[in-house]
Parts: sequence; structure tokens; C-alpha cells
Amino acid sequence: MSFPTVGVIGAGQLARMMLPPAVDLGISLSLFAGSSSESGAQVAPHTVGSLSDVDAVLDWASKCDVVTFEHELIPQELISAIEASGVKVFPKAQSFLFSQNKLAMRQKMEELGLPNPRWQAYDGGEVTVEFPLIAKSISGGYDGRGVFQIADESALDALHKEIGKTILLEERLAFDFEIAIMVARSPHGQASTWAPTLTVQEDGICTQTVTPIPNFSRALAAQTVQIALQIAQGIDLVGVMAVEIFVVGDQLIINELALRPHNSGHWSIEGAVTSQFEQHLRAVLDLPLGDTSLVAPFAVMGNVIGIETDKSKDLYKPYLHLMARIPGLKIHQYMKELRPGRKVGHVTLLGGDLLHLRSEVSHAVDYLSGAIDE
Amino acid sequence: MSFPTVGVIGAGQLARMMLPPAVDLGISLSLFAGSSSESGAQVAPHTVGSLSDVDAVLDWASKCDVVTFEHELIPQELISAIEASGVKVFPKAQSFLFSQNKLAMRQKMEELGLPNPRWQAYDGGEVTVEFPLIAKSISGGYDGRGVFQIADESALDALHKEIGKTILLEERLAFDFEIAIMVARSPHGQASTWAPTLTVQEDGICTQTVTPIPNFSRALAAQTVQIALQIAQGIDLVGVMAVEIFVVGDQLIINELALRPHNSGHWSIEGAVTSQFEQHLRAVLDLPLGDTSLVAPFAVMGNVIGIETDKSKDLYKPYLHLMARIPGLKIHQYMKELRPGRKVGHVTLLGGDLLHLRSEVSHAVDYLSGAIDE
Repeated sequence: MSFPTVGVIGAGQLARMMLPPAVDLGISLSLFAGSSSESGAQVAPHTVGSLSDVDAVLDWASKCDVVTFEHELIPQELISAIEASGVKVFPKAQSFLFSQNKLAMRQKMEELGLPNPRWQAYDGGEVTVEFPLIAKSISGGYDGRGVFQIADESALDALHKEIGKTILLEERLAFDFEIAIMVARSPHGQASTWAPTLTVQEDGICTQTVTPIPNFSRALAAQTVQIALQIAQGIDLVGVMAVEIFVVGDQLIINELALRPHNSGHWSIEGAVTSQFEQHLRAVLDLPLGDTSLVAPFAVMGNVIGIETDKSKDLYKPYLHLMARIPGLKIHQYMKELRPGRKVGHVTLLGGDLLHLRSEVSHAVDYLSGAIDE
Repeated sequence: MSFPTVGVIGAGQLARMMLPPAVDLGISLSLFAGSSSESGAQVAPHTVGSLSDVDAVLDWASKCDVVTFEHELIPQELISAIEASGVKVFPKAQSFLFSQNKLAMRQKMEELGLPNPRWQAYDGGEVTVEFPLIAKSISGGYDGRGVFQIADESALDALHKEIGKTILLEERLAFDFEIAIMVARSPHGQASTWAPTLTVQEDGICTQTVTPIPNFSRALAAQTVQIALQIAQGIDLVGVMAVEIFVVGDQLIINELALRPHNSGHWSIEGAVTSQFEQHLRAVLDLPLGDTSLVAPFAVMGNVIGIETDKSKDLYKPYLHLMARIPGLKIHQYMKELRPGRKVGHVTLLGGDLLHLRSEVSHAVDYLSGAIDE
């Protein structure tokens, strides 16, 4: 044994945020990046290449002790090819499938006896889910992309023609709120969750998270943890995974899985003893998992999402005001160009006064996203 | 304004530990390193060169928005030369002097009316400090180097001949324990301390720190903070500084100053809302300082110091045991070769049960230092 190198396919902000715990632990990162200007590639060692160049990926992978991913848009064949070359890949291709293929995910949840919304695979023919419904591309969607609100049969027909292949139909739930839970699992089957998180959504994008979930019963929290652990075991997860869940009264309905560090776990960088990024490294390296306890009564995370604005806006200048106003604010800058709708950073604030935390986080996000121009 | 580059002279573990907060905030680091294999240079952008090559240093500095240091062994003339070239340098040469020159430091403390031990500059002649006493090289010493226990006049004569220049004599205090306090100050004069820290010493080297100091009165804690703030203002500090202090009954006597992130502040990485490394960057960039509150009742830090052992010892393998036994343990590996007496890493553990924390930290250090060979 000696200090390992973890290969990461992808070089966005999730790869960037793996660097601090890697530096602490003496673990080397090697990113497979689309370009040197990507968020993670700006700070971590990387190889530039295309995922369609299988030989280049295999050559890069052969120099890593284990390979993992920071996004879902990776061809199954590529993951299988790395596995076949003898390099460890976590999560495994067969697990990662449930993060990439929404139909396979629904089937798996059903097989595990876990709560799905009403759903069907649709390729024309009878519609068994009630209108209005949600239609989803089976693969390739994330952050609300590939998800469609469908009012009636004719809208469904039009979408089906446009997409030209099987789509997934899901019941449109009148949910009370949306939550997420992060879970980590190692090859040995050791598994641990963090506290469930409230994900506050605007226009299908998460703008803020609150951990733990205010006014959430112990019974529901325990059930959330149980669902996450059951899925982790059921799909043979290695690494971290987010399980997104709808809460309808006292019912939990599974929405999505993401088999990677996830926005809904960013609070754990400062808010938990072990962050999701450190835990992901520990899990894929088959090291014992770390303590996931909270270090404060509440952790509130706010996403900095670009609005219509000048691309050249100075994102550093707001530090002068924000650090003075909120001395405990933790700013994470992804060093991405500001674009409408694009996540360019996040902030986290810990404390006990939830109203104060949420309003200060909103204030910080307004200044960092360009919504307020000084 | 835009995202700045902070130049750091030195590329040891202190520079390495500046990287995580720099990555979070989008601040670029540029180290001036002796070699690419140094702890910080392994992970951060750097220029390799010699401090005796003033032109190379000035060329490198001209590309930085501000220059700072991670060790004391930097010639005053070099700092002055960078300042003269128009590049901001923090701490300033005139402040840094008190970290480098122990005689100037004693004179300054006296001028500020702050508590020194009995002391004198000695270049032969009458000895006014009682034997046995402590003799110190005026510059170049750290971590117990350049500090001598002197029993009598003949030993002093011998040392003085050996050193061949003025030395500092100090009263040998029968102190109860040693403490340290970290303080940060910005060019605007904004200043903040962390909680005072107990530094547990063995053979003149700090092996463990405990923050806050157990059984330390509020009055003494307040006096410690006041001393740190007075020194910071008195020497026009910019950046972070450690003030090492002897506690003798209810008296505080100043021992040493270090104008840089310091071992006695490593606990702040996980134990405080803002770490000394983030605060140092904020201070030298003249950003508002961050919240220094503790996030746990106690933070215990243990230094991993090499013992007589095989240089090729695997420092990664103990992770398997230690992470399983102590899930909340935070390991910081400097990626330096194991050598007797050399600091190669540190660990931190947060919690409320101090005896438990201290014994688990000792256990972890034993495994990581090679004291226990599995």
C-alpha cells in the first residue's frame, strides 16, 4: 500500500471540491478533463481528452488506482471498458446505470419494494398515468433538463414524436416539499448517511438547502435513512449517492438518484465532520467511512446561479461587503463564467437561528449572482 | 478588482494548507519554492528558485497581487526589495523583524509595556539574569533550535565564543504551562483572535494542542486576547501571528512571536468557523476577517513527528485502522519523508470529552508516526 491516485472523469466543480480533502489526506487526484479551463482542471492535475477517445481514457485510467466520475454523462460502454481493462471503477457500471437510466431506476425501486410514483414506460399506446403528468427522457437529463410537464394526450404525442424513443411517464405528485439524503457505501458494504436535507426549489432548480429538515418527524427522518441505505445496498453502490425524495403528507416517494457528490450535500463541507467529498474518496478507496454528524444545529446552503447579466461581472468584489456583513459565511467559488441559469458557486452558513441563516444566505446569493449590482 | 493571486515565499506544509481555502474562494496561489518536491509545491502552482537570486524573486513577485511568507528564514533585505519594487508584502518588513529577531522582539514588548521574562542582550560583560538561564540566537532559530539551557558562566562563555555574536539571555521561568494564541489583523486594522490554546510540549517540541484551554480562567483568557491584540497593533501586523506565552501562576509572560500560520493554530482548520489559513489569505488581501468561533466544545490537535524508523514506512496503511477506530479523526498528511524529529503531519479531533479526545489523538499519532509498527 501507498498513497493512491484517484482518477476522476469530469473536471467541473464537483471535481474541484474533491481537491481539499485529497490534499489533506495525501491522496493524488487525476482528472480527465474536456479542457484545462474547467473548474476542477484549474486547480487539480488533469489530462485533457475526449470521452469518445476510448484509448486515451484507458491510457489515463491505467495510471490511476481507482477511477470515479463527477457527472452522469458517461457512456456505459466506456465504464465497462475501463472495468474490463482491470482498473477499479466505482461506482460500478451496473450501479451507475440507475443514475443514468430513469426507466431502469424505476424498475429497480419497484423490485426493491421502495415507493415510486405511478409510472410507465411509454412508446405509444395506452396511457395508464393520469394527466397532467410528467414525461422524462430516459437518459441524459439533469437539473430539470429532459423533464416535461404534459397536460394531455396531444402534448404527449408531440413530445414522443420529437424524442423519437421510449419515454418515462410519471404521476404528477401534489407533494408538500422535496428533500434529499446523501448516503455513502464502501466495497465492503459499510454504509452511512448524512442527515436528510430540505431542498428548496425554484423553477425546477434547487436554490437553497436546509439541514436537518425543520419540522420533520423522527419517524420520517428514520424512514428516509432506511430508504437510502436500502437503495445503496440494492444497487451495490460504491461512493456517495444522492436520493431525491418527494414528501406527500407522511409518505416518501423516490424522485431521482445521483451516484456522485451532489449539490444537496454541499452543506456537509463545513456542516458535517466528514464532507461528502472526503467520504466519496474514502468509499472508492475502500477506506473506513468518516463521521457524518452535523457540527451545528443547522447548515443552510445557497446556490449562486447566474442571472441575465454582464458575463464579465466581477464576482470577487462582493466579498468586501459579504464578508463584512456575514463573518461566518463560507463562500465556494467555482470560477466559471457567469451565464443565466448556470451554477457558479455556493455559500454555506451554520448556526441555530434558521430564519436568520436563510435570509443571510439569500442576501449573499443575490450579491454573488449579480442579481444586485453594487 | 478581480480574483487575486497570493504569492507565498516558501512551499512547506503551511503553504500546502493554504490551498484548500484558496480553492474555495477562487484565490490563486503562487509559491516560491526551493524544489517541486516540497509539501506545498506538490499540490499548488509554484516557481522553483533560490531566495539568494533577488532578480528571480522580484520577477516572480511582480506577477502576484500580494506576497506573504510561510517561514521566518527570509532575509530582511529581500522583503524590503520586494516592497521597494512596488509589490505589496504582508507582513511588512518592519513587522516581520519581530518574528526574526528575538532581541528586537524583547525591546518592542518592553516598549509596549507587555510582560517579558527578565532578559538582556549579551556580548560578554556582566550577566544580570540569574543562572541557570536560557540563551538564544537572536535570529534563525525555531522549534527549539537556537535555544540553549545555560547552567553557569563558563557554559555561557563557551556558547558565546561558539556563536561569535550578541546573544539574548532570558530568565528560566518555572512556568506552569505553555499556551499560544493566534491573532489576525488586516491593513485596515481590523483584528481578531481565536480562543487561546494549550500547547503541550515534550523536549521543547509541541506534541499536542488543546483549545480552548481547560481550567483557564476567563480573566486570564481575556488578558491573553488583549496581549495578542496589543502586539498585533503595536507591530502593525498584517496576516496571522502566533503569540506563545508562559503561564506562571496568574501571570502571563511572552515567549515568542511567529508572524505566519502556526502549528498552534492548526486546530482551527476543522475547529473554527474560519481557519488560520483562510484568515491569513483574507488579511493579506485586505478582505474582512472571518468568524473565529469554535464549532465544538474542544479541538485537540496532535503533531505527527517522525521517530527513528524506516524512511520508506508506509504512512497510508494506518488509515485503515485509524479511520475505523476514530471516524471523526481529521488527518493532515504533509507528504514529507519520515525522519526522526520531523513533523510530517497532524491530526485533529473535535468533541466534548477531553480525556477521550486526547487519548485518541495520541493513539492516532503513534500509528501515523511509526512509533507503533503494525
